[in-house]
Amino acid sequence: MRSCAIHPVMRIAVVAPSCTLRPDAAEAVTAIAAARGDGELMIHPQCFLSDGHFAGPDEARLTALREVMADDRYDAIWFARGGYGSNRIAEAAAANLPPAARAKTYLGYSDAGFLLAGFHKAGLNVAHGPMVQDVVRHGGEAAIHRALDWLVRRDEGSLEPGLKAGQPAMAFNLTVLSTLLGTSIEPDFDGVELLIEDVAEHEYRIDRAMFHVSGSPSMRNAAAIRMGRISEIPENDPPFGGDAESIVRDWCERSGIPFAGHADIGHDAANRVVPFTILSN
Amino acid sequence: MRSCAIHPVMRIAVVAPSCTLRPDAAEAVTAIAAARGDGELMIHPQCFLSDGHFAGPDEARLTALREVMADDRYDAIWFARGGYGSNRIAEAAAANLPPAARAKTYLGYSDAGFLLAGFHKAGLNVAHGPMVQDVVRHGGEAAIHRALDWLVRRDEGSLEPGLKAGQPAMAFNLTVLSTLLGTSIEPDFDGVELLIEDVAEHEYRIDRAMFHVSGSPSMRNAAAIRMGRISEIPENDPPFGGDAESIVRDWCERSGIPFAGHADIGHDAANRVVPFTILSN
Repeated sequence: MRSCAIHPVMRIAVVAPSCTLRPDAAEAVTAIAAARGDGELMIHPQCFLSDGHFAGPDEARLTALREVMADDRYDAIWFARGGYGSNRIAEAAAANLPPAARAKTYLGYSDAGFLLAGFHKAGLNVAHGPMVQDVVRHGGEAAIHRALDWLVRRDEGSLEPGLKAGQPAMAFNLTVLSTLLGTSIEPDFDGVELLIEDVAEHEYRIDRAMFHVSGSPSMRNAAAIRMGRISEIPENDPPFGGDAESIVRDWCERSGIPFAGHADIGHDAANRVVPFTILSN
Repeated sequence: MRSCAIHPVMRIAVVAPSCTLRPDAAEAVTAIAAARGDGELMIHPQCFLSDGHFAGPDEARLTALREVMADDRYDAIWFARGGYGSNRIAEAAAANLPPAARAKTYLGYSDAGFLLAGFHKAGLNVAHGPMVQDVVRHGGEAAIHRALDWLVRRDEGSLEPGLKAGQPAMAFNLTVLSTLLGTSIEPDFDGVELLIEDVAEHEYRIDRAMFHVSGSPSMRNAAAIRMGRISEIPENDPPFGGDAESIVRDWCERSGIPFAGHADIGHDAANRVVPFTILSN
């Protein structure tokens, strides 16, 4: 039942297009939302399915996502967590969109970047930002509040601080970005400030992904690249010979894409929100 | 000094565009070539340079490669080993080719696939096959003889057995292929039978790379995909839910690229030769 108050409670559907959501994370975030009182979560039962690597078979993940996209009771769709697998359903999820899908906000990052890309390309309102399972991170409650502050009332305090009015921006996990280039879900990067982050990739893999991304003609029309946190880098044997920032700067210089400094995003509780829509002020 | 015999000894230059060659591997392969008597190796000193992850700085690796490409004393260039790094010099190595570069054969695989791609695109005569450091693998001497048999006398016994006369073929490490798509070194896959192999990648990464490769419009014009060995797959937690072959078959089916069975290539001593040129009989 919807609230009839002047400030109606926002209804947020949680689905898991990638991997299975931890029940303790679902409980903790439901409790946070209940205590706040400004957002009502519907954790879709699909979040707890398990089929090998994934939160249920492709068909189940796609069906749950399409179900909440088509349901006009929900104001937002919040992706439960990353891992791997949303690419397997992203093209189908973005096809033949029901009208209700266009009135919602979609929030997630990491593997959910495949959906952000495809949905943004399809004209939906997406943002890179914390997901439900981030609550289990150290200091994760802050990430949940940041996400809800933005979903419920577009709190500017949730936004990545370097975003500029009138400058379109996107944010992606670097490895996810590399593996969506050229596919049907690749969005248009012309004039976009691109924020990248990554986790648990060796420096040689970061270097290879930057080679790929910066070597893509479509990416060379980006306005600039800003570097979020590239964390939990496994040890390279022998030492690689450069850190993540020098790698990103090097490929920006080689490709002619301006390097515009750091970005406050990453696989951590401090991860900020980056709407793909243009901020108006 | 070149041999003046009726069957001149083939001269083969070894350079390391990626990582440093092990001295013991260089010695073992030099001894094998000397015992055979039909090929003379020049192991370029650059092979033993070390600069972080690489066999010397980009400039040193590029200079050594360009030096032997331009030298008409060499009939073939054999890449010392893979690892990572040839992508960093591939575009420059394939630019403004000296005439001598066109009279040679280039052999390697794994990370050297970046060079195979760029050189094939530039019209050079490349082949996927064993490299010098493969001698240290179990049974590695056989790989060295197979490579030399093909380099020196185009022995058909060295070839991947499924290659067909008149059918263009290419072979790549799947991850390397994924990260060169869309870049300036991407070759034309129209009508090509594509052989893929990989090593030490999790199933979710194989799945993601297959999503990317099979989702590339340029790849959808390939004649077929054949699957080489995908080896040393790290354990997935939880179990992924499908093996490498089911993953490759799945993406072939989704994308409409015919799956044409297995290929006798991989990161092992049994790795066969796949010339990118069309076999005439």
